[in-house]
Amino acid sequence: MNATSRSPLSPDAFPDCPPVAGITLRVARARYKTWDRCDLTFVELVEGTAVAGVTTQSLCPSPEVEWCRAALPLGRARALVVNAGNSNAFTGHRGRAAVEAIAARVAGRLGCAPSDVFVASTGVIGVPLPIDKAEAGIDAAIAADPCGWEDAAATIMTTDTFPKASVAHAVIGDRTVTLVGIIKGSGMIAPDMATMLGFIFTDAAIDPALLQAMLARANKRSFSCITVDSDTSTSDTVLAFATGLAGNAPMAAEEDTGADAFAAALERVCLDLAQQVVRDGEGASKFITINVEGATSDDSARRIALSIANSPLVKTAIAGQDANWGRIVMAVGKAGEPAERDRLAIRFGATQVAREGLAVEGYDEAPVAAHLQGQEIEIGVDIGLGEGRATVWTCDLTHGYISINADYRS
Amino acid sequence: MNATSRSPLSPDAFPDCPPVAGITLRVARARYKTWDRCDLTFVELVEGTAVAGVTTQSLCPSPEVEWCRAALPLGRARALVVNAGNSNAFTGHRGRAAVEAIAARVAGRLGCAPSDVFVASTGVIGVPLPIDKAEAGIDAAIAADPCGWEDAAATIMTTDTFPKASVAHAVIGDRTVTLVGIIKGSGMIAPDMATMLGFIFTDAAIDPALLQAMLARANKRSFSCITVDSDTSTSDTVLAFATGLAGNAPMAAEEDTGADAFAAALERVCLDLAQQVVRDGEGASKFITINVEGATSDDSARRIALSIANSPLVKTAIAGQDANWGRIVMAVGKAGEPAERDRLAIRFGATQVAREGLAVEGYDEAPVAAHLQGQEIEIGVDIGLGEGRATVWTCDLTHGYISINADYRS
Repeated sequence: MNATSRSPLSPDAFPDCPPVAGITLRVARARYKTWDRCDLTFVELVEGTAVAGVTTQSLCPSPEVEWCRAALPLGRARALVVNAGNSNAFTGHRGRAAVEAIAARVAGRLGCAPSDVFVASTGVIGVPLPIDKAEAGIDAAIAADPCGWEDAAATIMTTDTFPKASVAHAVIGDRTVTLVGIIKGSGMIAPDMATMLGFIFTDAAIDPALLQAMLARANKRSFSCITVDSDTSTSDTVLAFATGLAGNAPMAAEEDTGADAFAAALERVCLDLAQQVVRDGEGASKFITINVEGATSDDSARRIALSIANSPLVKTAIAGQDANWGRIVMAVGKAGEPAERDRLAIRFGATQVAREGLAVEGYDEAPVAAHLQGQEIEIGVDIGLGEGRATVWTCDLTHGYISINADYRS
Repeated sequence: MNATSRSPLSPDAFPDCPPVAGITLRVARARYKTWDRCDLTFVELVEGTAVAGVTTQSLCPSPEVEWCRAALPLGRARALVVNAGNSNAFTGHRGRAAVEAIAARVAGRLGCAPSDVFVASTGVIGVPLPIDKAEAGIDAAIAADPCGWEDAAATIMTTDTFPKASVAHAVIGDRTVTLVGIIKGSGMIAPDMATMLGFIFTDAAIDPALLQAMLARANKRSFSCITVDSDTSTSDTVLAFATGLAGNAPMAAEEDTGADAFAAALERVCLDLAQQVVRDGEGASKFITINVEGATSDDSARRIALSIANSPLVKTAIAGQDANWGRIVMAVGKAGEPAERDRLAIRFGATQVAREGLAVEGYDEAPVAAHLQGQEIEIGVDIGLGEGRATVWTCDLTHGYISINADYRS
């Protein structure tokens, strides 16, 4: 695949991410593809680090996903290995052997249990991850100098056009804890999952079960509310690691001091990371926020919003800067959720274009056209039946998506 | 919208469709858009014509769909009016008034009940159909000379690039009956519906309830097994009209003489029409047949096949002639149907590329590459769990789809 230029929707700069106590980052060249870039990320975690995670709901998951699912209930982690360029998915027993070899190699070097080692891989499906390259890459990483967040975020990328990270703080009693997250993802992005590969690191002291509950909740409002192309990956994984070195009184229950603040910070990081994935959606030229209200429930609102967000006709209309609200009606109608045509109201930005089942007579097209020419598009839909609401984020569907995906060689 | 050149997947010629006794076709210029082409089709049906139909499952249907649904239980028809260029969907009370005016105008001219007049419209959503243009168009059509099937099939087109028809015969006792169908559709095509606008005409004598049962069955195996872009229209309608002039002993039950043959002919026409819609899929360069077997049920197989057929990543891979079977694994995994990764087998054409959850070692890439360079692509997936099977037809996703839909002005 050719290098693609940076997404026009990307943030101006990589965020200023501070170190997180207990976390050491290193990268190396495993050369999973014929490229000259780092493609293996090795994160060492201090003893006692708590871990939580959410993984893809695909019924054909990668062996890495199965490995993480088996290790997560133990709640503890000492290392994370991320391979870029080869997803190791759909590789049968050889794929499983590769993950076991990686965990064994790291466990031997760190003197920990293999189940303390978390592994994630991203890239082409169907080619077993070469064990010799992985082992040599791990050894090279361990021998390398530690690096910063931007290098780690860049090393986990595949079709991404910019490295993605987010930082937040939370006050817990008399301590301030730090959260830093990195993520990769650009295509094969759809909800009902835990997005591509995302990793969140914090120095907070928190029980793994509580971290898991908070991550699952944040996931539902962030990664599960984005879509690029409706295609759910076999490898989607989000892991959160908490080293406990911030010195706060350990949190074990939702009502503990600072737990609210920490959960809110975690959700901010998840939401920021999720939106950055959409901003790097393959071929994206517009960032689209879809607000649905008046549905019979929040879940119903989310399904309607996703039906709009996944509609190729809506996404191409936005790409063409066309206020084609008829396609939004179509997408509401096909969602299979309670809706009454003659109660629907639709707006672009602040301008109402349809109300009570028909076009608003003589609405002002100038602000609509101006809104659609921008990069940040908002679609508002009022179903008019109840109190349910949801927000979903997506991008437009352009020639760029076709070019990227009709040329990507397996 | 600019004129688009004829789809490369279109048949070489319009089929040779004979007249059907009791059916008179006429077309006229209602000028629903600023174009100089016929856009109103008027079909007069002999007294006693039976009718059956299936319509969109969209919860935001057009007033035409609501009108047909109300009239269908009566089982009789005298006329069909099809408007092209304006779908009249999402137009509130004004849209309903337009349909009522059309039915009243035709009823007055033919001396029948308004409920004997079936109406369908296709085109832009959200603009009330102008009653004056419709009435003048009906009057012009009634004054015009009768035309042939190709003119009628061309007049119902919107973004279609070729007129579509299908013909079949069935022997019923000592009589041979004729079935002719015409259809339009190219984008906003997705299953769980009765495709865009399709009309089937026969001179067979058949009870409307039996015709309805046969049409519903044929629909499930044809129009409900195609998808262009996963977007379900607000206006999808398939109607079947039987004039009864062939002289066969009227059929009223499945076990009546010739009923099997007639049902088979009806299904052939529906399947041919459905596949022609896919062959005119917006931007299509490849016609893709997806055969799923080994699923736990036929319905499960169909849902898996549709998950593959609707995946933008699978469709772009085929456009790029890339044997990227990893994306097929992905689409199986996200379907939510029973599947086990390590039992999956996948083939392109006759060449097995994956088996038991991993790539077939050293499979011959030459026949796969040759197959993918053709226009007729077949994907075979064996789930390996049961006896359920289904076939679904779709097209690839190309730059053409983006160009057509990012430029279509509302």
